[in-house]
Amino acid sequence: MNALTDLNVPERILLGPGPSMVSSRVLRAMAHPLVGHLDPKFIELMKEVQEGLRYVFQTQNQMTLPVSGTGSAGMESTVANLLEPGDTIMIGVNGYFGERLCDMASRYGATVNRLDKPWGDVFTPEEIDAALKKKPAKVVAVIHAETSTGALTSLEGMAEVVHKHGALFLVDCVTSLGGIPLKIDEWDIDIAYSGTQKCLSCPPGLSPVTIGARAREAFHQRKTKVANWYLDMTMLEHYWGDERTYHHTAPISMNYALREALRLVMEEGLEARYQRHRENSQMLWDGLEDLGLRLIVPIERRLPSLTTVAIPDGVNDMEIRKRLLEDFNIEIAGGLGAFKGKAWRIGLMGYSSRKENVVLLLSALERLLKK
Amino acid sequence: MNALTDLNVPERILLGPGPSMVSSRVLRAMAHPLVGHLDPKFIELMKEVQEGLRYVFQTQNQMTLPVSGTGSAGMESTVANLLEPGDTIMIGVNGYFGERLCDMASRYGATVNRLDKPWGDVFTPEEIDAALKKKPAKVVAVIHAETSTGALTSLEGMAEVVHKHGALFLVDCVTSLGGIPLKIDEWDIDIAYSGTQKCLSCPPGLSPVTIGARAREAFHQRKTKVANWYLDMTMLEHYWGDERTYHHTAPISMNYALREALRLVMEEGLEARYQRHRENSQMLWDGLEDLGLRLIVPIERRLPSLTTVAIPDGVNDMEIRKRLLEDFNIEIAGGLGAFKGKAWRIGLMGYSSRKENVVLLLSALERLLKK
Repeated sequence: MNALTDLNVPERILLGPGPSMVSSRVLRAMAHPLVGHLDPKFIELMKEVQEGLRYVFQTQNQMTLPVSGTGSAGMESTVANLLEPGDTIMIGVNGYFGERLCDMASRYGATVNRLDKPWGDVFTPEEIDAALKKKPAKVVAVIHAETSTGALTSLEGMAEVVHKHGALFLVDCVTSLGGIPLKIDEWDIDIAYSGTQKCLSCPPGLSPVTIGARAREAFHQRKTKVANWYLDMTMLEHYWGDERTYHHTAPISMNYALREALRLVMEEGLEARYQRHRENSQMLWDGLEDLGLRLIVPIERRLPSLTTVAIPDGVNDMEIRKRLLEDFNIEIAGGLGAFKGKAWRIGLMGYSSRKENVVLLLSALERLLKK
Repeated sequence: MNALTDLNVPERILLGPGPSMVSSRVLRAMAHPLVGHLDPKFIELMKEVQEGLRYVFQTQNQMTLPVSGTGSAGMESTVANLLEPGDTIMIGVNGYFGERLCDMASRYGATVNRLDKPWGDVFTPEEIDAALKKKPAKVVAVIHAETSTGALTSLEGMAEVVHKHGALFLVDCVTSLGGIPLKIDEWDIDIAYSGTQKCLSCPPGLSPVTIGARAREAFHQRKTKVANWYLDMTMLEHYWGDERTYHHTAPISMNYALREALRLVMEEGLEARYQRHRENSQMLWDGLEDLGLRLIVPIERRLPSLTTVAIPDGVNDMEIRKRLLEDFNIEIAGGLGAFKGKAWRIGLMGYSSRKENVVLLLSALERLLKK
């Protein structure tokens, strides 16, 4: 084979659905030489990472930890641990990631009750209530921020309904954690997962998960072993708990990065961070509408972290994205599934959510669409 | 919560069972700003990583890729994809990681035929042949380099026996890949996995896996979906194959690191690298014996990447390791399972395998054992 050259990848302006841009502080922390995964200093760092995650999740859950894989691994860890063959899960499907959750849950032998809504739509507590009255479930799952559609499902009042029916409330926070208000304890969410490469602006490779008392109890009530060794929380809780029992080798460098990314969130403060995400997205939305573009999701349920834009008739999706990337070094994304070829997805997450990026993207888009 | 300080972890001399030390070139590559996981430039890089992995595995297998988790995820990916409920796997258990493989395989509903040998011992083709005559199996698994014992199972002639009985040959190469001769194609191994944080000297976070034609055919012959979404090779083959279909977000930075680590292997050349591992370990072995210490594994099957040393009577395991870490900044490891409290595990892997590290460890150990 040919000899490899020096690493020669561009430094992109990342305005897609993730990974978002990463602060040089996080990159520097990640590049620190390694310690062992059972080193007392790494164990201190694990605690700090867990404390930082509790802050962004707004929870006191002891069992709050980064799963050693990207967001989909965190997603799978929740269903793998909650569900045994024959259990029922009700999943709100209003986009690509609800669909993925159905696929995963079925692999663990669960009965999947889909609650379908059109892409871009969201669920209300009343709808969950009505569905549970018809068909009870052990677990109810919704996607807080659907990365495929840009729609935000409001979680307030939802847990109450789910708990009234004796179910556990599972929430996908992949595109909300650290960018959009999310209050695990106040909203009484039993279990949630996220990714690091979205509003936390840390490279992909870890998946923050938080597990409350009811979900933890459900893990311990299982009759069968978790059908997934790597993601078995009954073992992971000893590795990330006080015992620090060896399970697998944690990705040391990724944890260095996550610690620094969480530190940046703490320095900024969650409220200020949420506001920055809202303000910059408002600026983007105004600018896109000034260009005559239509935003797919109505403002009342539009995500401040990810915006879906209808591709105008006669405009070549691939060509515009190619020109953005090649001429202006900007990444945005196309649509997934039902939105393929119909929507662009523009992310303003974490370190990517900056005024200079908004202005640059608007200006570049204007030039390309004029042609 | 308290504000976090700057990252302040030590720069250890890592002579345990992994992670090994990482070259500053790899750390710098890892710290490069990110591109998106579907960026054309990242897709080029994925190809380069795959080519580099084919070189270290000594294979032409198209399906050679880094699973997006640490070594145990790679391990689990092989059994999850090979085994369906009711299938039989024969696993050679001569240490901790054979044991782990049994646990994983059973979670996928497989019948596990254990072939047990004392810790530190190894398997021969004749033993595998005899065992398969008694009980056939769909898959036969052995650990090439047992990280818990320091013993090397010679793989030559083994596949022939396994294939004679119509089984697939699965090999754990976690502590051999890149440090000890391993010839996937020449030895006709059907499927193998490894970790990045051992002899490749890349931070933990990825798990190289290579899959030959027979194993791939077995994947496609499955009657049931793979009971693990994140590790489903029938989907991963489209992400890492020519289609590059989105599956999960690959850990971008870890792939930057792996590319550079593989580049370092290519620059050195595999043969020279194997020789360096052998020579430095020989120097370690001689030095340890000069100190009156007993090496647990006989030289003919002793790993050049990991050495197990019997802890002498009257010597406090924990105290010596603590002094090595605190006074000399050196990490070595204690024993796992049957070797707990009885053995130290000293790794000389990848970038850690250097004469200066050998001399330093011997000198530090001499001082501590004299006290």
